[in-house]
Amino acid sequence: MIVKIEVKLKPGHFDPEGDVTAKSLRDLGFKVEEVKVSKVYTLNLLSGNAEEAVNQAKDMCKKLLANPTKDNFTVEVLGLEKADNKKS
Amino acid sequence: MIVKIEVKLKPGHFDPEGDVTAKSLRDLGFKVEEVKVSKVYTLNLLSGNAEEAVNQAKDMCKKLLANPTKDNFTVEVLGLEKADNKKS
Repeated sequence: MIVKIEVKLKPGHFDPEGDVTAKSLRDLGFKVEEVKVSKVYTLNLLSGNAEEAVNQAKDMCKKLLANPTKDNFTVEVLGLEKADNKKS
Repeated sequence: MIVKIEVKLKPGHFDPEGDVTAKSLRDLGFKVEEVKVSKVYTLNLLSGNAEEAVNQAKDMCKKLLANPTKDNFTVEVLGLEKADNKKS
């Protein structure tokens, strides 16, 4: 089962990478107000059950991938296909 | 206009961060076959036109955000809302 986890900063948290990216884009002439950077983990789980896969992914976020103090996360099941062949 | 850009490694490229994440998840007892890590930029552009925003975002990828040798990117328009209030 292919699962996509997005880990992003909670609103209000300082995002230095986003700020630097916004500055660089402005230096290149783009009219950008704000940039936020987040990380996506695309996982190939051995589980074949969507509900079980979502529960596992949430558990992974709590135990490793997301920092509860500063991060929010979203979990999305992409299906049984290989991640590389799937439009995101 | 809120635009979401995902930059991911092209298929076949070595993803050390994904491999380490997969190992850590396995050490925690999760049954994970593979993990791929990608980066998402959520941009607030001053442009109010969706087509223009997509073209600008593609241009940003070519000039700064994506490495054409190793990265693929996808661009998605999320609309006029603030990124923080939008489910992704």
